[in-house]
Amino acid sequence: MENAKRHDGRTFDEKRQTRFTRHFTCYAEGSVLIEQGGTRVCCTASVLPGVPAWLKGQGRGWVTAEYGLLPRATGTRTEREAAKGRQSGRTQEIQRLIGRSLRAVVDLQKLGENTIKIDCDVLQADGGTRCASISGAYVALVDALRWMQQRGMVSDSPLKGAVSAISVGMSEGCPVLDLDYVEDSGSDTDMNVVMTETGRFVEIQGTAEGEPFSREDLNRLLDLAQKGNREIQQEQQKALAQP
Amino acid sequence: MENAKRHDGRTFDEKRQTRFTRHFTCYAEGSVLIEQGGTRVCCTASVLPGVPAWLKGQGRGWVTAEYGLLPRATGTRTEREAAKGRQSGRTQEIQRLIGRSLRAVVDLQKLGENTIKIDCDVLQADGGTRCASISGAYVALVDALRWMQQRGMVSDSPLKGAVSAISVGMSEGCPVLDLDYVEDSGSDTDMNVVMTETGRFVEIQGTAEGEPFSREDLNRLLDLAQKGNREIQQEQQKALAQP
Amino acid sequence: MENAKRHDGRTFDEKRQTRFTRHFTCYAEGSVLIEQGGTRVCCTASVLPGVPAWLKGQGRGWVTAEYGLLPRATGTRTEREAAKGRQSGRTQEIQRLIGRSLRAVVDLQKLGENTIKIDCDVLQADGGTRCASISGAYVALVDALRWMQQRGMVSDSPLKGAVSAISVGMSEGCPVLDLDYVEDSGSDTDMNVVMTETGRFVEIQGTAEGEPFSREDLNRLLDLAQKGNREIQQEQQKALAQP
Amino acid sequence: MENAKRHDGRTFDEKRQTRFTRHFTCYAEGSVLIEQGGTRVCCTASVLPGVPAWLKGQGRGWVTAEYGLLPRATGTRTEREAAKGRQSGRTQEIQRLIGRSLRAVVDLQKLGENTIKIDCDVLQADGGTRCASISGAYVALVDALRWMQQRGMVSDSPLKGAVSAISVGMSEGCPVLDLDYVEDSGSDTDMNVVMTETGRFVEIQGTAEGEPFSREDLNRLLDLAQKGNREIQQEQQKALAQP
Amino acid sequence: MENAKRHDGRTFDEKRQTRFTRHFTCYAEGSVLIEQGGTRVCCTASVLPGVPAWLKGQGRGWVTAEYGLLPRATGTRTEREAAKGRQSGRTQEIQRLIGRSLRAVVDLQKLGENTIKIDCDVLQADGGTRCASISGAYVALVDALRWMQQRGMVSDSPLKGAVSAISVGMSEGCPVLDLDYVEDSGSDTDMNVVMTETGRFVEIQGTAEGEPFSREDLNRLLDLAQKGNREIQQEQQKALAQP
Amino acid sequence: MENAKRHDGRTFDEKRQTRFTRHFTCYAEGSVLIEQGGTRVCCTASVLPGVPAWLKGQGRGWVTAEYGLLPRATGTRTEREAAKGRQSGRTQEIQRLIGRSLRAVVDLQKLGENTIKIDCDVLQADGGTRCASISGAYVALVDALRWMQQRGMVSDSPLKGAVSAISVGMSEGCPVLDLDYVEDSGSDTDMNVVMTETGRFVEIQGTAEGEPFSREDLNRLLDLAQKGNREIQQEQQKALAQP
Repeated sequence: MENAKRHDGRTFDEKRQTRFTRHFTCYAEGSVLIEQGGTRVCCTASVLPGVPAWLKGQGRGWVTAEYGLLPRATGTRTEREAAKGRQSGRTQEIQRLIGRSLRAVVDLQKLGENTIKIDCDVLQADGGTRCASISGAYVALVDALRWMQQRGMVSDSPLKGAVSAISVGMSEGCPVLDLDYVEDSGSDTDMNVVMTETGRFVEIQGTAEGEPFSREDLNRLLDLAQKGNREIQQEQQKALAQP
Repeated sequence: MENAKRHDGRTFDEKRQTRFTRHFTCYAEGSVLIEQGGTRVCCTASVLPGVPAWLKGQGRGWVTAEYGLLPRATGTRTEREAAKGRQSGRTQEIQRLIGRSLRAVVDLQKLGENTIKIDCDVLQADGGTRCASISGAYVALVDALRWMQQRGMVSDSPLKGAVSAISVGMSEGCPVLDLDYVEDSGSDTDMNVVMTETGRFVEIQGTAEGEPFSREDLNRLLDLAQKGNREIQQEQQKALAQP
Repeated sequence: MENAKRHDGRTFDEKRQTRFTRHFTCYAEGSVLIEQGGTRVCCTASVLPGVPAWLKGQGRGWVTAEYGLLPRATGTRTEREAAKGRQSGRTQEIQRLIGRSLRAVVDLQKLGENTIKIDCDVLQADGGTRCASISGAYVALVDALRWMQQRGMVSDSPLKGAVSAISVGMSEGCPVLDLDYVEDSGSDTDMNVVMTETGRFVEIQGTAEGEPFSREDLNRLLDLAQKGNREIQQEQQKALAQP
Repeated sequence: MENAKRHDGRTFDEKRQTRFTRHFTCYAEGSVLIEQGGTRVCCTASVLPGVPAWLKGQGRGWVTAEYGLLPRATGTRTEREAAKGRQSGRTQEIQRLIGRSLRAVVDLQKLGENTIKIDCDVLQADGGTRCASISGAYVALVDALRWMQQRGMVSDSPLKGAVSAISVGMSEGCPVLDLDYVEDSGSDTDMNVVMTETGRFVEIQGTAEGEPFSREDLNRLLDLAQKGNREIQQEQQKALAQP
Repeated sequence: MENAKRHDGRTFDEKRQTRFTRHFTCYAEGSVLIEQGGTRVCCTASVLPGVPAWLKGQGRGWVTAEYGLLPRATGTRTEREAAKGRQSGRTQEIQRLIGRSLRAVVDLQKLGENTIKIDCDVLQADGGTRCASISGAYVALVDALRWMQQRGMVSDSPLKGAVSAISVGMSEGCPVLDLDYVEDSGSDTDMNVVMTETGRFVEIQGTAEGEPFSREDLNRLLDLAQKGNREIQQEQQKALAQP
Repeated sequence: MENAKRHDGRTFDEKRQTRFTRHFTCYAEGSVLIEQGGTRVCCTASVLPGVPAWLKGQGRGWVTAEYGLLPRATGTRTEREAAKGRQSGRTQEIQRLIGRSLRAVVDLQKLGENTIKIDCDVLQADGGTRCASISGAYVALVDALRWMQQRGMVSDSPLKGAVSAISVGMSEGCPVLDLDYVEDSGSDTDMNVVMTETGRFVEIQGTAEGEPFSREDLNRLLDLAQKGNREIQQEQQKALAQP
């Protein structure tokens, strides 16, 4: 099988440049701008006292997420969900995914009865916004947990591991890593892979938009996703090593 | 690795009994009750003239789905979404999945400017309702397409293949097929696999609720899912062979 | 006055066949499928601890109802209320009627601070769904009250009597019993009569869609309704006599 | 059977004073304040070009109604429905009833493709607001139809008859006419009777809040309602006879 | 600069006649109909125990307002906000303004943990409804505070002063006082001025619909507004002097 | 009168530093980040074909605005309006103000039947967000109009002038320019002044949160606002002079 020729010159297994800007805004306990190529997402982690009603009195915490898109984050204006009065199915799907992905690396027991609320707001969307949201939110989450430790709100770090996400897909019959908007629009299969730093999966969501994919395709896509996630995780660690 | 001991005596690779009742209600062009163990879903396919605004004038059709749960389909009463005034994120996620899965086996060009609206309403929920909805909706869809052919609304069948879905998961460290509600609640990983009759995947959604899963786990789960889907597809064909 | 010729061969004072299937689904404390001719309604009674805020601390219970229609219960697809985000005026009118009708036969004092929530979901609609909902819900209610007694949640049965409902109407100038959809669409007057087993009325709702009706018409309609309700009540008792 | 002693000194068959103020506000084509004892309702009839989508192209008109309550029309403040974001079931039930009642006396064919929108807004509520709304709206409707005739919008009057409504009920075992708020709160049975000037019924809605009512009770209540409606209709005609 | 010729013969600095009808409805603790020319607003003040959640436990009270328009208060029918399911931006803007204006003259400390809820419902709108609402609501507020004092709910009067409002505007280049609907529609600048009886401002809202206004224009408008407010305040005091 | 001592060392008539970053995001026809001290707002101007229904067929265009706040733009997390399902009264008030302010400097006739949609999304809020939104949106608007001219969508520039806004207030009895969050929270009077480059006013909104303000106070505040707006307008022009 030949490898894909990509419109921006990348090789099939080359992800876009990832950049993390910590302390992007000044109020949130964790606030990170992640740039994945042309995709830019502002990820904040807010530490809130208490937990949802259904969790009360168990001594455990909660991590949950919300996702939004500025109206002109996209090529044509996307209607503002606050004005429409409801969040789309897509938005809800994404924010549930982000929440699950981060909960996978947090020991909720150690968090105590506190909630960490993640907000991922896309300033500019060039494909892969849900994966970038997860990768960026992880860094914001770590900053928020450090903030809690500094204040003695948690004794032991609730962090169980690192997590990142990247998209892969079949583009013109060939597997490629980290699709941008143009590639995503034309791809047959789109897969989002959320992985921990031990190489295990938190979530795999693969969808055939056009032609269904074979088990062999799946394996090649997973190889790429593992490579991409490992690279992002190195960059997360580098960003977090700075003061 | 040992195999799971299951609370209902099934072997790890044994799915629950599947039963299709076609013509379950009298008005819909396709109407099927699917029973997957204790899970019962009423699936109807309605043929509606015209297509959504964004598709108009292209000569192509559309297939879309809605999903609901009767309030007492569940062990404790689930609040009625019509009374709450909004569909939950879970509901929207499921109905988008059902729609994508069925579109994978329909040639929208051959459908003409018609919409097939799938409604999946769960009468009783014992795990795996989204997968049962897909498997049952496929049978209702075929009935609706036959109805169109009989009336000359389509000349050539728009059907490109068969599709079914089944859930698999890691239960106490062992992979099992077709989890019921009890198993699902206790499982570490839950995966829904939508497969065509050629053994290719339309959708794979794997989520680690507890421990992340390894690539080896994934492979064993996919083996089970392929087996289960093949069995369901045989039963779909048998049901559709009856007049 | 001549009697009506009915399109399905029934005499003017002949109701359609009524069938009750108890234990229709497995989770609800009471679960009954009622079939009234082609009309099929799933009625469940859920026992919930506590009462609405405005009733708290008075030692009394509450009975309330919700009503819904599967989208393809009808000849042409009815839009799903959960998707529209609001229940129609018709739905609210019906569910208030069902609630009032059942409260008429329950001693709320004896119920203690518990709520019985009735859900009536129409699987197939061929006229008379609100009356069938009441007649079916009564049987589900009795099963739920028996369930409470078996668990010692109530000492004395809160049941004060039996209740059923049936529709009558003027069709082409003649009074007829238990209109189906075709008759209902063409009728001048439609009346729903909710009656206890002592022959007293809980609710009478008569509406002239076309020609207003005279007091004499009213009397003839009430005669029919009393006959029909007595017949349904016999069938309710027969169904409840089974274990 | 003895007759009721009423808290305001009325005899059992005596209705409260009814007063109509035509041209109550200046913009609506018909605008009437009806006072029924302490109940005061502002009824307007607006002539709007066109009809709802489902009626288009049939050459027929439509009459429909909306109902509201000023927040302090009631003894304790009622939450504003516009602020809550939805109309209650009670409001929807009432506005549907008003619409049906007025359509009973309008020849929609003669109305042409026009809509008459009735708005009934309760300024002060002392029982019987839905009946007062109907009786007042009829006068506003006549004024609006006259306005149309003066402008040549209709050639022949679309009016087929007169209509009014009054409530009756069983209060401490005795039938009484035109219940005020105090009586209504304590009554066992509440019945709203909408009647044309020929003495025929457009709508009968009888509800047993407490004890179910017998057929004999019903007959006595209907006698009262007929008397009360005849009296209101005389007052409507008197009001409409003024220029 | 020449003065405006006004379509109703008023001089440029002449306001419309103001009339207050206290005890307009019977249930509210304060209930006032204000008429400002053709504009008529029913203003009620309801005394409610308790305060909003965010104020609890501070020993202070709250004053807040809601605003509505009967559908045919306007020349062409305005859609009912309860039916639309949301209050418009204009409505929310107005009710926030009314609340702020009245809070300016109430000592919330002396009010204790009570809420006064103002409802302003426009029966007829001929321009200046938000200003009339404030002027009328003040009178209703005073009546409600007197009611509280009579019952010993407050010892000392929480009233700090009087407040009224009036609109001014530039009409064809000339400043005019108290615009009616016709003038308002044609004006370049519209300004609402809320003033206490000491001549100080609670709120100034000036908007250039067409040509922006100069500082000199502003000064001339404020002169008019001060004159108009002084006149209204005399009429408020006269109305409140009656028993 | 002494001048205010300000917590950040500014003199009473000194505004915070204003910075404009044009082309902040890549898709919108105009996209500007405005920073006013710690307040940061992303302002985009989108060119959309067509106009709202009520403007159709008149050959004129429209300019309208929407406003939002990222949840952690604020010190404590603000609930996401899209999740709540409705925009607050404050949000609607602000977006209406932004729209009016920009329409004051656009010749809608020259715009043709096009809409310019302004989106102002606050990334970080440190007081004065509505004024910063207007000042930033003006720059985005100019970029969008230039984009239209380059494409020949408008022949003549629809721009009639420049516009900016700044807040002023009474802080501890002294007038100050450009309040930040700390000052705004403690101020008695808050005034937003929207001014064109000719020194005329588009909008003046002055609110006394505590003590009402005198006419003399008003004059001193307006002096400050005129100074501040002149300074911002110089910076707008400088930013727009760059390519």
